[in-house]
Amino acid sequence: MSSPGIARTPTPPYYAVIFTSLRTEAERGYGQMAERMVELAAQQPGFLGVESARNEGGLGITVSYWESEEAIARWKENSEHQVAQEGGKKTWYSDYRLRVARVERDYGKPASV
Amino acid sequence: MSSPGIARTPTPPYYAVIFTSLRTEAERGYGQMAERMVELAAQQPGFLGVESARNEGGLGITVSYWESEEAIARWKENSEHQVAQEGGKKTWYSDYRLRVARVERDYGKPASV
Repeated sequence: MSSPGIARTPTPPYYAVIFTSLRTEAERGYGQMAERMVELAAQQPGFLGVESARNEGGLGITVSYWESEEAIARWKENSEHQVAQEGGKKTWYSDYRLRVARVERDYGKPASV
Repeated sequence: MSSPGIARTPTPPYYAVIFTSLRTEAERGYGQMAERMVELAAQQPGFLGVESARNEGGLGITVSYWESEEAIARWKENSEHQVAQEGGKKTWYSDYRLRVARVERDYGKPASV
């Protein structure tokens, strides 16, 4: 499952997990893991959507959207996700930062422009 | 000025503007505008950092970080930025969504792993 577009999130408030990362050169199953995590996240209670982009240079940003802090905490504890998190620390990411934020308001491109 | 890395933001709370966009095929000064907006944003009061990534397929995510909602509002009203916003609506983006969120907590890669 891929996530090529802009997430169709509900009216705020809801939560965003902003995960910014720098990739190592190591492939070692990275693509498969990343796809599987999107698939698995989408099955979690409280999941609202995900958006992901990565530069050729290696910087990537993945934003996942959630109904509540509790939903985020449950996803972090998911056992298959925990294995992926370990792989991220040890193999796939040379650096990363994860930020949990509460979305207060949002807007899109006006339909008439 | 480019922004190749992970933003060095202070201890939360602070604010994030998550701008997710789909590009059109139209170049028409897009690269120049994007660089200029990063340069200009960095000069605004309350600016904390910016991260940006775009897939080859066209989906991009830019997250800018700010001290306060007031700083975000001032940046939105900046006259040169307003010209760019109009170009975005009319020329550069086929679709976009902008979300304003309050960052509650964050963490990075453990130094010892």
